[in-house]
Amino acid sequence: MIGVVDNLGFDILAHHGAAFRECAPELELLRPGEVTDPAAVEFVLTFRPPDDCFARYPNLRAAVSPAAGMDGILACPSLPPGLPVLRVEDPDQARQMAGFAVFHVLWHHRRIDLHLEDQRAERWNRPAHGRSPQSRRIGIMGHGNMGRAIAQALAGLGYPVRVLARRPAEAAPGVEIMLDRDAFLSGTDILINVLPLTAETRGVIDAALLARLPEGAALIQIGRGEQLVEADLLAALDGGRLAGASLDVFAVEPLPAGHPFWRHPRVLVTPHTASAPESRNVALCVSRGLAALRDGMEATA
Amino acid sequence: MIGVVDNLGFDILAHHGAAFRECAPELELLRPGEVTDPAAVEFVLTFRPPDDCFARYPNLRAAVSPAAGMDGILACPSLPPGLPVLRVEDPDQARQMAGFAVFHVLWHHRRIDLHLEDQRAERWNRPAHGRSPQSRRIGIMGHGNMGRAIAQALAGLGYPVRVLARRPAEAAPGVEIMLDRDAFLSGTDILINVLPLTAETRGVIDAALLARLPEGAALIQIGRGEQLVEADLLAALDGGRLAGASLDVFAVEPLPAGHPFWRHPRVLVTPHTASAPESRNVALCVSRGLAALRDGMEATA
Ligand SMILES: NC(=O)c1ccc[n+]([C@@H]2O[C@H](COP(=O)([O-])OP(=O)(O)OC[C@H]3O[C@@H](n4cnc5c(N)ncnc54)[C@H](OP(=O)(O)O)[C@@H]3O)[C@@H](O)[C@H]2O)c1
Ligand SMILES: NC(=O)c1ccc[n+]([C@@H]2O[C@H](COP(=O)([O-])OP(=O)(O)OC[C@H]3O[C@@H](n4cnc5c(N)ncnc54)[C@H](OP(=O)(O)O)[C@@H]3O)[C@@H](O)[C@H]2O)c1
Repeated sequence: MIGVVDNLGFDILAHHGAAFRECAPELELLRPGEVTDPAAVEFVLTFRPPDDCFARYPNLRAAVSPAAGMDGILACPSLPPGLPVLRVEDPDQARQMAGFAVFHVLWHHRRIDLHLEDQRAERWNRPAHGRSPQSRRIGIMGHGNMGRAIAQALAGLGYPVRVLARRPAEAAPGVEIMLDRDAFLSGTDILINVLPLTAETRGVIDAALLARLPEGAALIQIGRGEQLVEADLLAALDGGRLAGASLDVFAVEPLPAGHPFWRHPRVLVTPHTASAPESRNVALCVSRGLAALRDGMEATA
Repeated sequence: MIGVVDNLGFDILAHHGAAFRECAPELELLRPGEVTDPAAVEFVLTFRPPDDCFARYPNLRAAVSPAAGMDGILACPSLPPGLPVLRVEDPDQARQMAGFAVFHVLWHHRRIDLHLEDQRAERWNRPAHGRSPQSRRIGIMGHGNMGRAIAQALAGLGYPVRVLARRPAEAAPGVEIMLDRDAFLSGTDILINVLPLTAETRGVIDAALLARLPEGAALIQIGRGEQLVEADLLAALDGGRLAGASLDVFAVEPLPAGHPFWRHPRVLVTPHTASAPESRNVALCVSRGLAALRDGMEATA
């Protein structure tokens, strides 16, 4: 099966090429310039497609993301309506995400920033705050592959965990599904956003949402940058409502030098690194997804 | 039941007194100066007893630690031989410990120190290292109330977890019990020490042990300070064998200003704060422990 790899910014082939050759030898991956017969191209592998990415290939069966998010593909103007979009759904990546989220929950709950400050001052300063996980209610937005793993890990560590959902759903023991957004927010001390970027979630973390959180709350933002109204977050931090924020994703990436997030004393910036599937898992997942799609298409042909 | 609270450094009554009055009203707690009839004192509540702590009370039924460790009591010269020693065994505290250990595993595995450095330099620098938990083998020394909770949390997050034990034992799914110390150490990328302080564990983390770890390993030291030979750790860090260390406990606490740990670029110091039982849980646990002891004693009387 022939596919084209066409992406902005990040060289998918340099990164994952060897794993595809090993784990998905049935897939032939070409760069756009290497394509001699556009009609033979059956899929495009891309995370941030150029605007005209899909226009040249008349016989596509799928657009494929080598990551968890498909928002880049879904926003591409040349994406043919109705073309199936595949993505990587990897339990190992979900566990990476869970570990990363737990790290930031502890960072805010246990005020590790103050410990680092005390260390620089050579000051022994045992905190008076409650160490019990019962003292911080965790709220999670997004209950898919990532959100479920995060919820389960934090509930297992004793944190009270609630998830904001749009319909009733099964959840891990100790995890409460909530449908009432205001009740969810007013009872959330640490908010974790791991929603996919869609028309409804764009700008969802704004002044109105932040104002519903209890004073002293913290934000862990590991979904997509466009979901956060950056100026509103800065105002909430500087106005004292929010105690701190961990930001891994940004409206503009790389986050430009000079951006106020870099220097904010209560913001922890990481470079879109919360989780990423291992190359092997990307190759295996794409291979299986395309095979299932082809079998399904043949079965219904 | 009358008890005396006699402790060095930390005022147990100021901290936990209200919870004892609420949750253990059957226990009357006195400071040493308030005792009028030493023969009526049935237990001593203490973490770091003065040397003569137990000498004045002829009818003691128990020495009681308001914490997980009993090493301070066991080392006290006036402890009557054979006197039962009780301690707090609290699932909430074990979960605090697990969260704290997970934090430090992520700190070392995901090199958050470098992210903080990059943030100060306003530098977007996606790391090339493997994010998968499969890329770091965790080794835990101590498999009691604390060690089990830590092992379970890390295995749940996808880390390969092994525990060094002195006899075969049951373990959580994904946790391997190992009896061979050398095999344990040579396969441990992140070593977590949560042993109690005893004659055998004093100085257990020394040059010989550190030399068995693979190059680039990290140490998370949350047991007792006296278990670590501090000079050997510094040599292993500076010699390049160890990549980093998180230290929460020290031979001398508070860690004195000027101690090389404070300024070491690859050491994270916290002030013996990994976990502590909530006052309520201390009071309930001590109350239950003393009741069980009294019932047992009466039953066999
Ligand atoms: N920072 C990083 O390194 C990183 C890494 C991986 C992923 N991510 C981000 O995380 C996102 C989620 O990944 P995933 O694999 O968990 O996705 P997923 O499996 O597709 O799950 C998405 C979840 O979000 C829910 N959702 C969608 N729109 C919603 C809305 N308007 N209101 C409430 N819930 C809504 C879905 O609920 P329904 O069940 O109701 O549809 C579902 O539970 C990705 O899209 C990506 O943006 C970031
Ligand atoms: N940093 C902090 O804030 C903090 C907080 C709480 C506790 N701690 C420390 O953590 C320690 C452990 O607490 P815990 O509640 O888990 O104690 P615990 O329930 O008594 O468990 C002790 C464990 O250590 C094992 N052990 C003892 N000596 C050993 C040896 N020589 N070799 C191998 N294993 C040995 C025991 O094994 P067996 O089953 O074979 O006896 C048991 O698994 C405490 O004593 C305290 O020093 C520190």
